[in-house]
Amino acid sequence: MAETSILINGTWRPARPVGSFRAFDPSTGVPLPELFPVSSREDVLEALEAGRKAALELAARPPETIAGFLELFARRIVERAEEIVAVAHCETAFPIEPRLRLNELPRTADQIRQSAEAARDRSWRRATIASKLNIRSMYGPLGGPVVVFGPNNFPLAFNAVGGGDAAAAIAAGNPVIAKGHPGHPSTTRLFAEIAAGCLAETDMPKATLQLVYHLNPEDGLSLVAHPWTGATAFTGSRAAGLKLKEAADRAGKPIYLEMSSVNPVFILPAAMRERGEQIAADLFASCSLGAGQFCTKPGLVIFVNDDAGRRFVEAARGLFEQPPSGYLVGPGLIGGLKAAIAKMKLQKAFVLVGGTETDGPGFGFANTLLAVHAWDFLRSPDVFQQEAFGTATVLVFAPDVEEMTAVAEALGGNLAGSIYSHGQGEDDGLYRTIEPLLLRGVGRVLNDKMPTGLAVVPAMVHGGPFPATGHPGFTAVGIPAAMLRFAALRCYDNVRPDRLPEELRDKNPTGRMWRLIDGEWTSRDVFS
Amino acid sequence: MAETSILINGTWRPARPVGSFRAFDPSTGVPLPELFPVSSREDVLEALEAGRKAALELAARPPETIAGFLELFARRIVERAEEIVAVAHCETAFPIEPRLRLNELPRTADQIRQSAEAARDRSWRRATIASKLNIRSMYGPLGGPVVVFGPNNFPLAFNAVGGGDAAAAIAAGNPVIAKGHPGHPSTTRLFAEIAAGCLAETDMPKATLQLVYHLNPEDGLSLVAHPWTGATAFTGSRAAGLKLKEAADRAGKPIYLEMSSVNPVFILPAAMRERGEQIAADLFASCSLGAGQFCTKPGLVIFVNDDAGRRFVEAARGLFEQPPSGYLVGPGLIGGLKAAIAKMKLQKAFVLVGGTETDGPGFGFANTLLAVHAWDFLRSPDVFQQEAFGTATVLVFAPDVEEMTAVAEALGGNLAGSIYSHGQGEDDGLYRTIEPLLLRGVGRVLNDKMPTGLAVVPAMVHGGPFPATGHPGFTAVGIPAAMLRFAALRCYDNVRPDRLPEELRDKNPTGRMWRLIDGEWTSRDVFS
Repeated sequence: MAETSILINGTWRPARPVGSFRAFDPSTGVPLPELFPVSSREDVLEALEAGRKAALELAARPPETIAGFLELFARRIVERAEEIVAVAHCETAFPIEPRLRLNELPRTADQIRQSAEAARDRSWRRATIASKLNIRSMYGPLGGPVVVFGPNNFPLAFNAVGGGDAAAAIAAGNPVIAKGHPGHPSTTRLFAEIAAGCLAETDMPKATLQLVYHLNPEDGLSLVAHPWTGATAFTGSRAAGLKLKEAADRAGKPIYLEMSSVNPVFILPAAMRERGEQIAADLFASCSLGAGQFCTKPGLVIFVNDDAGRRFVEAARGLFEQPPSGYLVGPGLIGGLKAAIAKMKLQKAFVLVGGTETDGPGFGFANTLLAVHAWDFLRSPDVFQQEAFGTATVLVFAPDVEEMTAVAEALGGNLAGSIYSHGQGEDDGLYRTIEPLLLRGVGRVLNDKMPTGLAVVPAMVHGGPFPATGHPGFTAVGIPAAMLRFAALRCYDNVRPDRLPEELRDKNPTGRMWRLIDGEWTSRDVFS
Repeated sequence: MAETSILINGTWRPARPVGSFRAFDPSTGVPLPELFPVSSREDVLEALEAGRKAALELAARPPETIAGFLELFARRIVERAEEIVAVAHCETAFPIEPRLRLNELPRTADQIRQSAEAARDRSWRRATIASKLNIRSMYGPLGGPVVVFGPNNFPLAFNAVGGGDAAAAIAAGNPVIAKGHPGHPSTTRLFAEIAAGCLAETDMPKATLQLVYHLNPEDGLSLVAHPWTGATAFTGSRAAGLKLKEAADRAGKPIYLEMSSVNPVFILPAAMRERGEQIAADLFASCSLGAGQFCTKPGLVIFVNDDAGRRFVEAARGLFEQPPSGYLVGPGLIGGLKAAIAKMKLQKAFVLVGGTETDGPGFGFANTLLAVHAWDFLRSPDVFQQEAFGTATVLVFAPDVEEMTAVAEALGGNLAGSIYSHGQGEDDGLYRTIEPLLLRGVGRVLNDKMPTGLAVVPAMVHGGPFPATGHPGFTAVGIPAAMLRFAALRCYDNVRPDRLPEELRDKNPTGRMWRLIDGEWTSRDVFS
């Protein structure tokens, strides 16, 4: 059987493969028929060469052309929604409804539309003008292709081709070299087919979006470190992320990683007394969403082990004892969960519910509730802050609020952290102690809400300090902020008026673009 | 003789030294009397511990307190200008006038005042509010101290204590651990004495600014990689910068480096015919400024070697044959220049003027003009893009405009790049070819102007792709943009109104702060 072609410089052509692979149906554990190539270094170099040329071409395209492409791409995705959803369902076993059809696909199209709108609007460039000195600066494309590594857990919204990273990179004027996740290659191929059609229709460089399905690790490392690469976006495991980070860092290439988070949830004592059972229901719902395969899954729950705390544990136990709601997307995740649980047990964690894989068929794992005493957590905080995908979470029993605070002190970098507190203010003193400690280590702090469920709005931050990501100043979700990952800041000093990019000329190019002129955010022209 | 004390947690105390050193008077080459300690790991750990606490305290201080401190610091620097200038002159041999008294000191105070204004104004936080969903985000301090490594070439404006990095870090709400440059320790001590006094007077955490004078390399590496460190700013050599970068990167700690640039200047043919001699005068003035010890010194000049080009070379030769205008700030720089020249000669560069150190006393080096044919440059582009401080530049002779373009293609990352073109448009076609290639690799593109002389305005970019810096999305000069290096992006999701930081509440805290509310930059309140 022939391997599926890759998309290089606008052409579908056979890979020069160094291997091949098939995806699995997670609900049966059986490999799917389509055979995909593991690309070689030659494939990568060809993509880089085409991407480097496309970067220069794309930098000269009007934003309206880029926006037009993205809008068409979003429209075609919606038109072909049923096909995309069906293929993604085969490859991930995520429910068609509500997950794929009603949540993830609309979000995917919406992100692309928002990116298009941002490209058209141009305010994302944060044009800054010192009018008297004729010094003008703005964000612009990087000058080389952006490499996007898609993760296993969002076949659509974080797809290497159809997901938010690719859309943000292109909206900022960069071509993309997508490295699809091997868990859902047919879904990725389908996105790339749609994208390639849209590129051809909209006067875009044909190498704006290229696709390889898989790479050997060493070829991935050389790709992110290549002199022609503009930057890399990676969403995936910490182990793989750290290796890519090392290679990119050494080469001085920006890399944005979203590589693990346990998203601690603090339940303060009066809130626990007030509504512990409701919070247990929130926890289980959040934790079991997508069978626990969310970057923002609450993986650590800290509370005082008093009477109310014990009632909370009983309520949670009851909920977690249900059979699992879905499958893990790949066979590796079962091993990951088992290893994490074994390590935590060595550090005195105990299993309250689950802890083992389910009987076949498919990649199933029992809902798992672990617990550890705060003093044991504090002895090995790193072991309890290893992300493991699956409906599994660790309850941290604190004897008192001082130990809760000590746990907050010991936390590493996370994407999000929640604090549940009493509705009438009874926890407010403790909130003021814990919040600054939590805030130091997270990209997003929540009140009375679990961390799953990201609204794709400009104020969202899906980021946070290392090791949740590689840099605390960026976000992977939220347009236009997410585009700034794929942008270079450039100044035009004494450049003649007719040579300035439109965005920096005296006349506002759209009449609506926001610019910071002499200290004032305005959509007016520069008055000379 | 006792070593000068270091400033740790608000107290001047003797270091626990692992060595000692003295600075030189560059005009005589003789060591100065004051003896300074090389700090030990214990000193560093004590500073980190105090800095970590100060980071939490500072995050809770009103911006007005931080601004008040910075304003007082700027005022005191101006009041003690004569003393500062005299000490800096001893340690660097930079002329008191105009350099130190009229340029660098006023710039230093101005940067600190601008940072104070930005802290007070709060718009730097780029508060972004999705009012209906109650999702709000903004930049805030990092949660740990910022380490600042000062360079040798700006004893005041880039001083580890008094310079732009420290001011930007503090204005963004972070404490600073300054590692002074060993070339001007007395100047740095004086700034720290002034700062410590101002901290005590303004209700600021006493560990807001701490100072060590020198570290062994391994202690510097462990400092930038320490879990408690928030971020690092380094200005200095590429060799030292790359080592620090590796250590910080491995630990997942942000590091901002400004570590070398040759700042290419393209002189297009019609401009050369029009005003070659004037451009030669511009070049010499820019190149000899501060005895060639500017990060933005033009180190590479590319032009067509036609009749006009040859007249330009003769004019430049005449100017460079003057005796040097000043001293190099340290003895190591002479060796650096000699090594760079020797390497370039091996790759077929030829010396037109200078190339050797001057007879003593002091650290002098003859003005040096090198030349290389474009085809030889293209064979070893890396060798000709090694920064070397001193009044030295390399002329690249291109046989035609195609070779000029090939040189533009071969350039690495630089802080700045200039293009001189004909006043009446005769070079415009070639400009359109070269500018996009140059732009890809620089943080700032100039027209008809040499790259030295940075205006400290919000639109300035002193940045650029690796290896000029470590990340193309940031700038080290220009307030408030430079503050974003020392900021984490954080989101407040569903956080109760009275718990939000003032900047994200419905009411605009100053009535003037710019915020992005539901897609509009405004200084209005949020309408609920």
